[in-house]
Amino acid sequence: MTQQFARLPDLILEPMVRAALMEDLGQNGDITTRAVIPASATYQARLNAREAGVVSGMQIARIAFHLVDAGLKVETLLDDGSTCAKGDTLMTIEGSAASILSAERVALNFAGRLTGIATLTAGFVAQTAGTNTRITCTRKTTPGLRIAEKQAVLHGGGYNHRFGLSDAILIKDNHIAAAGGIKAVLTAAKACASHMMKVEIEVDTLEQLEEVIATGGADVVLLDNMDTATLTQAVAMARGHVVTEASGNMKLERIAEVAATGVDYISSGALTHSARTLDLGLDF
Amino acid sequence: MTQQFARLPDLILEPMVRAALMEDLGQNGDITTRAVIPASATYQARLNAREAGVVSGMQIARIAFHLVDAGLKVETLLDDGSTCAKGDTLMTIEGSAASILSAERVALNFAGRLTGIATLTAGFVAQTAGTNTRITCTRKTTPGLRIAEKQAVLHGGGYNHRFGLSDAILIKDNHIAAAGGIKAVLTAAKACASHMMKVEIEVDTLEQLEEVIATGGADVVLLDNMDTATLTQAVAMARGHVVTEASGNMKLERIAEVAATGVDYISSGALTHSARTLDLGLDF
Amino acid sequence: MTQQFARLPDLILEPMVRAALMEDLGQNGDITTRAVIPASATYQARLNAREAGVVSGMQIARIAFHLVDAGLKVETLLDDGSTCAKGDTLMTIEGSAASILSAERVALNFAGRLTGIATLTAGFVAQTAGTNTRITCTRKTTPGLRIAEKQAVLHGGGYNHRFGLSDAILIKDNHIAAAGGIKAVLTAAKACASHMMKVEIEVDTLEQLEEVIATGGADVVLLDNMDTATLTQAVAMARGHVVTEASGNMKLERIAEVAATGVDYISSGALTHSARTLDLGLDF
Amino acid sequence: MTQQFARLPDLILEPMVRAALMEDLGQNGDITTRAVIPASATYQARLNAREAGVVSGMQIARIAFHLVDAGLKVETLLDDGSTCAKGDTLMTIEGSAASILSAERVALNFAGRLTGIATLTAGFVAQTAGTNTRITCTRKTTPGLRIAEKQAVLHGGGYNHRFGLSDAILIKDNHIAAAGGIKAVLTAAKACASHMMKVEIEVDTLEQLEEVIATGGADVVLLDNMDTATLTQAVAMARGHVVTEASGNMKLERIAEVAATGVDYISSGALTHSARTLDLGLDF
Amino acid sequence: MTQQFARLPDLILEPMVRAALMEDLGQNGDITTRAVIPASATYQARLNAREAGVVSGMQIARIAFHLVDAGLKVETLLDDGSTCAKGDTLMTIEGSAASILSAERVALNFAGRLTGIATLTAGFVAQTAGTNTRITCTRKTTPGLRIAEKQAVLHGGGYNHRFGLSDAILIKDNHIAAAGGIKAVLTAAKACASHMMKVEIEVDTLEQLEEVIATGGADVVLLDNMDTATLTQAVAMARGHVVTEASGNMKLERIAEVAATGVDYISSGALTHSARTLDLGLDF
Amino acid sequence: MTQQFARLPDLILEPMVRAALMEDLGQNGDITTRAVIPASATYQARLNAREAGVVSGMQIARIAFHLVDAGLKVETLLDDGSTCAKGDTLMTIEGSAASILSAERVALNFAGRLTGIATLTAGFVAQTAGTNTRITCTRKTTPGLRIAEKQAVLHGGGYNHRFGLSDAILIKDNHIAAAGGIKAVLTAAKACASHMMKVEIEVDTLEQLEEVIATGGADVVLLDNMDTATLTQAVAMARGHVVTEASGNMKLERIAEVAATGVDYISSGALTHSARTLDLGLDF
Repeated sequence: MTQQFARLPDLILEPMVRAALMEDLGQNGDITTRAVIPASATYQARLNAREAGVVSGMQIARIAFHLVDAGLKVETLLDDGSTCAKGDTLMTIEGSAASILSAERVALNFAGRLTGIATLTAGFVAQTAGTNTRITCTRKTTPGLRIAEKQAVLHGGGYNHRFGLSDAILIKDNHIAAAGGIKAVLTAAKACASHMMKVEIEVDTLEQLEEVIATGGADVVLLDNMDTATLTQAVAMARGHVVTEASGNMKLERIAEVAATGVDYISSGALTHSARTLDLGLDF
Repeated sequence: MTQQFARLPDLILEPMVRAALMEDLGQNGDITTRAVIPASATYQARLNAREAGVVSGMQIARIAFHLVDAGLKVETLLDDGSTCAKGDTLMTIEGSAASILSAERVALNFAGRLTGIATLTAGFVAQTAGTNTRITCTRKTTPGLRIAEKQAVLHGGGYNHRFGLSDAILIKDNHIAAAGGIKAVLTAAKACASHMMKVEIEVDTLEQLEEVIATGGADVVLLDNMDTATLTQAVAMARGHVVTEASGNMKLERIAEVAATGVDYISSGALTHSARTLDLGLDF
Repeated sequence: MTQQFARLPDLILEPMVRAALMEDLGQNGDITTRAVIPASATYQARLNAREAGVVSGMQIARIAFHLVDAGLKVETLLDDGSTCAKGDTLMTIEGSAASILSAERVALNFAGRLTGIATLTAGFVAQTAGTNTRITCTRKTTPGLRIAEKQAVLHGGGYNHRFGLSDAILIKDNHIAAAGGIKAVLTAAKACASHMMKVEIEVDTLEQLEEVIATGGADVVLLDNMDTATLTQAVAMARGHVVTEASGNMKLERIAEVAATGVDYISSGALTHSARTLDLGLDF
Repeated sequence: MTQQFARLPDLILEPMVRAALMEDLGQNGDITTRAVIPASATYQARLNAREAGVVSGMQIARIAFHLVDAGLKVETLLDDGSTCAKGDTLMTIEGSAASILSAERVALNFAGRLTGIATLTAGFVAQTAGTNTRITCTRKTTPGLRIAEKQAVLHGGGYNHRFGLSDAILIKDNHIAAAGGIKAVLTAAKACASHMMKVEIEVDTLEQLEEVIATGGADVVLLDNMDTATLTQAVAMARGHVVTEASGNMKLERIAEVAATGVDYISSGALTHSARTLDLGLDF
Repeated sequence: MTQQFARLPDLILEPMVRAALMEDLGQNGDITTRAVIPASATYQARLNAREAGVVSGMQIARIAFHLVDAGLKVETLLDDGSTCAKGDTLMTIEGSAASILSAERVALNFAGRLTGIATLTAGFVAQTAGTNTRITCTRKTTPGLRIAEKQAVLHGGGYNHRFGLSDAILIKDNHIAAAGGIKAVLTAAKACASHMMKVEIEVDTLEQLEEVIATGGADVVLLDNMDTATLTQAVAMARGHVVTEASGNMKLERIAEVAATGVDYISSGALTHSARTLDLGLDF
Repeated sequence: MTQQFARLPDLILEPMVRAALMEDLGQNGDITTRAVIPASATYQARLNAREAGVVSGMQIARIAFHLVDAGLKVETLLDDGSTCAKGDTLMTIEGSAASILSAERVALNFAGRLTGIATLTAGFVAQTAGTNTRITCTRKTTPGLRIAEKQAVLHGGGYNHRFGLSDAILIKDNHIAAAGGIKAVLTAAKACASHMMKVEIEVDTLEQLEEVIATGGADVVLLDNMDTATLTQAVAMARGHVVTEASGNMKLERIAEVAATGVDYISSGALTHSARTLDLGLDF
């Protein structure tokens, strides 16, 4: 079983959920519910999975229900990171019918998207079985939702790449060109980088990789858009010198083959930008 | 050609873009670029389409580049709502290389996602050719990005459903059950609704539709999860009484058939929650 | 008795109340109270009406007291929408004297203004007795307080017009002129408007009304600044075609006469921009 | 001519104006204008007074137009604090018709309300002609608009009382009671108050005033709800000892009589909570 | 014992603490703790003084722990304003180990800095023993932390000068020069200032002081950068006319001598900008 | 010469400066300046160093002046990171006297504090001359000002440690204890940490250091509170295995001796929490 980071404090996620609720409620709130649901009506609602997957977004869904009505009784049956089968109940919500209906769409929009990401990640991870290769996401996340989507990748058994531009150095082809080559760029990066910042550099060819190793200059090398044969060579060259990450059009059907090269990490933007929303629903 | 709403004032979109930039830049900004790109370096960058589609997100991309550096010269060649071919340049950006690199990912994350939505919407719209049926989105949007995604639907030739819970009444099955039936729920809704609020009600059967028409009570009826034969009947019954909207698992391959029933609107959550990100890139 | 929208979630109103408290408390809080009121002092305070009216702002007053001190015990005796007589107690607040004094002015500023609006609205509504005419407000609200003032109109038995520029289309004379006439403007509006947006158009003359009806193009027609005889004709012409709204200098003393024309709605900016603050006070 | 505080930096007013615009524009902006006004249409608009008064809100109106469209050319003809006659043009705005229409209502809502306050204040001030009595407002302002309304009082020739609970000490009857009498409360206040905080105390009777003077303890005394004869006596007693402020139901028609007592300040909550909105309009 | 202002409502301090927590937690929270601390682990932690001083920041520390985890049990043993000895426990915190570790640094950063300010202030105050001279701070506070630092000055037995530019008038040399001399500047200030605003003026010489007294124009005079002999003369001249404040390089070792002149206030920017952080630590 | 990170985009710093200005300006702005400075008055102001040091805060000072008045002409003569002598002019500001006076204190409060930090850091760095030891800060920064203070450390020639809890793993004694020892804690950390996160662990003894090296488990080891002899041994043991950081009471007078041990980094909280504000002033 994968070791997991423990849950984030609600403090971090709450502003995102609050903003989503305000976006949906508008100035005048849920006018349908306000017009037709008796104030005394109560529900016992179940958030159910209409298909199998890996759960994410339950912490956020709970925050959403409680921001609308702190009096709702919310119980999470399958926590973030759990596997769910079709028909499983992930969460139960009891209390004011009006409150539950007003928060429903926001809770489902988050949970469906995040469960989709966790499920897709788990599919990638499954393809690495029997290897030490880890699956990781990128910065190709939905604007405003990065922390939630990065959490969903963890829930699916993946690892997180940089959270943003400021927590590690990742030198890409444009940086190399502008700085005057691999040696120059690594020298500049190392002069600035502190001992707490990782430095990764992207290479497209084995020659570039050789130069990186020769300069002794990076924590991680990103092997970009290489075919499997080249990747295999690159991994062999890098072993003992630098951690390897394969990137570039890493489709699900190719993961097993790439993992077999022994590469340390496979990164995929698709995990966050192209995951299919999982079908979840609220039943009363 | 479709009549389009004119562009939103930047004022409305700016907070969303600013938040996304802060999320990506973190406290310490783009440390790679700050370490290795000379302050005097400049770029002429082109935002290019790597596949064909319908453009959206150009206004947002422009705002992103200008928030990072008001001195960048940004020119939009293919504005939101335009069709683009593979290889087309959508926008050119000139100025500080460091500024362009620091804003690049946020601009692309927005533009790729929104162009994906516009393109998928245009695909739906194309299936309605020769009919009066209109394609519309739902509230199944990405939390925090609703206005941008709704705009993208317009750019693709679609129409917008409610922007949130407060701008129109949409009575669903739970509301009907809680209020004591169709007649009761419509009476309650009409007692509250002003002359500036539309009222829509969801029906699953022709019997329910008949009851709605008999009470004379809604502006729009949502025909949920009906097969095409039933839809055809429903549209005939509703004609002259109430605007019709077909909903429920409206996949691209079924749209032409559904449009042929004469239904006024087809709504699909997939337009916003399941559009594939279009492949856009910044070339220097 | 009027059917009413149920209460908004506190989530929507809280930011407005919090901002008002911060405005009044300043950086250093209630320095008078902090200097002279013993920390252990407690009060049993009553929010009393010093004149008769229709109550509004009680939900907001409760939020204000609880934001300053969640330990205060607040009980609402006459809820928003109730009628109060001079001397009636609307709310009781028990607990820390310092907390009650610190929140007092903000609670009263909201409640006095909102009760004033509800009371004035109820005065307008009373003039429509025996007719089907409804009273509605406009967008002439206090900047920043729109939702609270629109709620107060509901509490007084009125209806709400648009909440803002984005929830319905209202075509005014300038729009007609710029777009090239009534037919052109309605064609453009309908091409953009979805099935969930109402379209209203302002007319000044019976000729304009006739043109609107002939084009079959609006949900509502705003009859602007007409004398009662003209209004009567207009209402007759519009019946069965379009909902009617009379507007323009609708003073209290003219409401009964206008309602007698059978117009569907009478709108008045004065409800929100010129209501007299009702005299409420906190007694200890 | 009254000496005036110079204009505030826009920085302070902008958040209030921005919030009001967002409230009015909603997520989807001015859909009417976006649907029917050609993007190329331009206006030369004039903000005109439809009745005479004292101008306020021009700085705010300018900020509103510029937040919606920095390209608008805005010229203020009659600045805040000027007197205007019926028909006078206060401001001209040139540029995109769509931008002007989108900002119009917010600009007018602010300017109408603030000009109303300035005008009412000027009416009070006029009643004090030939005396040294100054007119001042209170904290009975519209929640969220305090700084704008206090500015409007200045524009009308009045003075500002406290901006909030933290910038001066004002001891009211409840404070006196809770602290154990006038002497005790003044002792406590003086022990806390620094040399930069004024201390005012409310008295209802001449006996209380005598006690205040005897303790030598306040900068200002608020003479609450006294008839004119009593006020005259109070002012005589206080002269040379403490600044005097008359308060409590200070209606316009009584101001001249009260000013004749020689009182230093007359304060009135009505200036801000009950001013009539002045009729301003935008003409094209 | 010094009379103290009672505690501020948490409402005022919470945004500052929340912002500091977000700054420290980042998007991904305390990843060390999330990786290695079992979710079920609990602590009994003590916030201890590692040196003697005067306590401040306990209210803020409590808010910090509770924002991260409302379930933590926080007990303040030595409240703000208390004296502590080396080794004293100021606060105990019980509950989730992960929560306590995540909030620890922010709580300590605030408390260490504020206790440092309170302690330094108390040192100044001790030098005034046997006189009526009061110690006061300035506006030379840490940007964003003014209210917290001003509170710490109170906790140390000092007084607060202005909270900002808007709560009192303080005329400095540049103002005098620009306005055309002392008489002109005081006339202008008095024409604007209301009865609730104090007016202070800075003088550098006895001649200037004489002119201020002659015009009868200020509540307080700031005696800037005078030697003790001159200060003594100035205080004598000012007695009965105007409150005196000595300022300019007021080091701890000079305070007793300055206080002996009989000056009413001594102000020092060093209290807030140069206080040494007190050594506090969290022990488990 | 030290390689430096290039300047941050203003976007990142602006909210901090805006908040500081709002804190100082209050609701009513700079009332002294508004009362007495003629609107037409202009200044040529110079921001001068009254003592020698290393400059920081010039970017922030410029933002402050421009937020108050975009029309001010601000020229930076000695940019952040420069050395200044007593009397040097760092920046010139020309334009409205009122605007300059209103922004002065905030600009100076930032610049004085940050220049103090840069200067103190440079003092530490000077002690490491002739070695490869680098000076680094900690998370003991002023709440809310972390990015500005971390920048100031860079300007002084130092390096930055973690920006917050989420950008690298730092295992302290409490983590070791709670996780069950060094091996267990490093195993848990490595299971969670991605390839882009550094892992540092604190050790107090050579035995602990040996265990860390034996497990092969960290990027950096923090040698806490060791005497110089022990440090020397530790550095020798760690060479080739793990980067070393010396911490714990690192006073200026001890830096040269510690650097002579060959340790890679020396970290000091004093750089940010105990730097003396440098004396800067605005001259007109």
